[in-house]
This record gives sequence, structure tokens and C-alpha cells, in this order.
Amino acid sequence: MAAESPVPLPALERLSTYIRCLMQLERDGVASVSSQDMEKHTGVSAAQFRKDLSYFGEFGKRGIGYRVVDLKERIASLLEIDREQSVVIVGAGHLGSALIAYPGWRSYRFKIAAVFDREPAVIGKRIRQYTVQDITELEDQTARLGARIGIIAVPAWEAQGVADRLVAAGIVGIVNFAPMKLQTPEHVVVREVCFICELAMLSYLVNHPAGGSEPAHSDDP
Amino acid sequence: MAAESPVPLPALERLSTYIRCLMQLERDGVASVSSQDMEKHTGVSAAQFRKDLSYFGEFGKRGIGYRVVDLKERIASLLEIDREQSVVIVGAGHLGSALIAYPGWRSYRFKIAAVFDREPAVIGKRIRQYTVQDITELEDQTARLGARIGIIAVPAWEAQGVADRLVAAGIVGIVNFAPMKLQTPEHVVVREVCFICELAMLSYLVNHPAGGSEPAHSDDP
Repeated sequence: MAAESPVPLPALERLSTYIRCLMQLERDGVASVSSQDMEKHTGVSAAQFRKDLSYFGEFGKRGIGYRVVDLKERIASLLEIDREQSVVIVGAGHLGSALIAYPGWRSYRFKIAAVFDREPAVIGKRIRQYTVQDITELEDQTARLGARIGIIAVPAWEAQGVADRLVAAGIVGIVNFAPMKLQTPEHVVVREVCFICELAMLSYLVNHPAGGSEPAHSDDP
Repeated sequence: MAAESPVPLPALERLSTYIRCLMQLERDGVASVSSQDMEKHTGVSAAQFRKDLSYFGEFGKRGIGYRVVDLKERIASLLEIDREQSVVIVGAGHLGSALIAYPGWRSYRFKIAAVFDREPAVIGKRIRQYTVQDITELEDQTARLGARIGIIAVPAWEAQGVADRLVAAGIVGIVNFAPMKLQTPEHVVVREVCFICELAMLSYLVNHPAGGSEPAHSDDP
């Protein structure tokens, strides 16, 4: 499966790293950054950073660098996180609760539209400002809310069933935290968050000190 | 920062995807796989898969494919997850609790050696078989346990302080869930798990349907 999108996936990964960094810089009151600053903050080389900015045409001024706010807005516009998008979360256990408590939702303009669970003990519970809904409501609510993105935070053995239901309800993008590969139709994009995969890679890297401190999303050398 | 390790990071990411898949296949009782099967399961092309196996020299038989157990063991050996490694977790809130409950620890031979938190209400609490320890014990316990890998599951504003303490205690590899870039010495490897970055990428991909369903760790086309 070759990438057909105009921005290839490794570049998207870097752009998402840049914008996270730029949001942090903005919060810290930093007005402008150089590509060298960005290398220091993100671990992605200054040369790669400048190359990635070619997605936006030329901007930034030699000796002055990039205005943090401008750059952030350009990347946000490209990623289409410059407008509100509804997200549904399935699974209101520890992981779902941790996701709800995550502080970044507003900055990225994602809105938690609904939270579902199948456990009677959890349904009706309030987590922050959200009331956990019965998963039997998933299809109706998701369609009604017009949500296109869903997060799967249920155990592995429930994940495929949840994915099928999300897709049937009109979800076209899934972040999957369950430790299993989902089978989904071609038009659905799935991003797997594999915590144990990170640990496995870390195992290799700490046991091969020559590897040093890599940026999370570097390209092949 | 160019990769100096023998196995570059994108290949490591794929290897960690393969082994997760192979563990699943093993649990499902599948004895052998072809590179085409692997493409179906992981989203990484059969050609890329065969290329990645060059890290192990030639094996697998045309028309028969690869023995699941053999391939799993070879990758486990390369990643050095074929022997027990102690991991400490800092942060026993919802995220820390979700990590402790994660079912993959044993398959990857990671052992949760200790769990720390700073909240008096949480210290002493039992989560599964672990008793949450006072973070003031972090340095002594981590050194005593000989742990080299740590997981940061605390809020962003506490993460750098925790990282500093982990590094001082001898930790050389960190999985960081806090939404901020850590500053660490050169010899420390940090993997960032950025949930909101996944959502941001998903935003782009679902809004550019031509991008289709990408594997999480594909290379540039």
C-alpha cells in the first residue's frame, strides 16, 4: 500500500511533532523560532524541518526565523485541525478516562462528542463533563453527532466488534489502542497506538547505545 | 541526529509491528505465514517485509513461508526482548493503571519492577499485584532493582522532573506519555507516545481520502 496522499506519512508524523512543539512554544510566550531551535526541541534535523516547510511554499526570514503563531496556523490548516471535529471514545475504563483527561483536546480543536462503554457499572458515570453512554447507543449517537473519528479504548477481544460498529455508524478514522490489528474497509484510516511496540524498540535502542537518542519519527539515515 | 544503530528506526518500527502480529498468530495457532499474509495483517508490503528479514540472513522457504515461532524468536532476539527486563512506571493515575493492566507485558518479557506516585492518596494503593510506592523511593528502588527502562505517565508539568530523577537513578530508556518534549542526556533514549499527534495525523488522512488506509509505520513511497 503506497501512500497516495500529497503529504506522505513520515512527513505527517514530523508535522504533528512540529505543531505540538509550536503550541508549547506559544504557551511559553516564544514569538519566533529558527530551524536550529526546532531541531533542539523536536530532534528532527534543521535541514529536514526546512525541507518539510516546502509544503507551505517559502516563508520565514533568514536570520529572523519563523513566527511561531504563523507556522502553527499553517500546519494546523494543512492538518485540518483549524476547525472543530467531533470524536467519539469507546471504552471508559482507565485508558478512556486518561484520554478524556488529556489536556490537548482544545488546542487541536477536537471535541469529545460522546463516550461509550458496555459495562453497566460504568454507564451513566460522569468523567469530567461527560456522561458515559450505553454502547447500544453508539450507532445512533455517532451518526447524529456527525462524528467521523473514533477512538477505541476497549480490550483487544472487543476491539474488532467496536471497529465494525464505528464504521457502520460512519466513522472513517480510528485511533486504536487495543493491542490488535483491526480489519477495516479501504476507506477507513486506522492509526495504531502500540505502547508495547515502543517498549520493544526501546529495548533494542538501550541495548545498542550507538543508536543514541533518536527522534521518534526520523527517516532512514 | 542521524541513526547510528545497525537497524534504523523505521525498520525497528516495522519489526515491532511484525512481532506483535506473530505473537497474535501464535496465539491463534497459526504455524506458518507467507510475506503476503504478513502484508495483509500488518499493512507493510510483502516486498518490504522480505527486505527487513535480511537483518536475519536468509530463511523461510519458497511456497511454505516462515515458521511463526522461528520468526518471532528471531525478531525477539534482535530486539533483545528474549530475556527479562525490569521497567519502572512513574504515575499511577488512570494512565498508569491502564498500562499496568495491559496484557502484553509477559509476552515481551518486560517485568514491572515498581510503580511510583507522588499523591499521598495513591501511595500504598494496590493496582493488580503492585503496591504504589512513594516517589521519594524512586532513586533507591530503581537503582536497587537494576531497572534501565522507565515509563513516564505523569502530567506534563511533572514530566521533566521525573525524567531527571529516572536518569539520575540509572534509567537509560524512557517511554514518555506526557505531552511534552523531554530534555535528557545523549545516552538516554526517549520514545514519545503522542496520542494527540495520532489524532492530528488522522485528521489529515480522513480529510484526504486519497491517502487511504496507511500502515502506521510505512516508509516514504
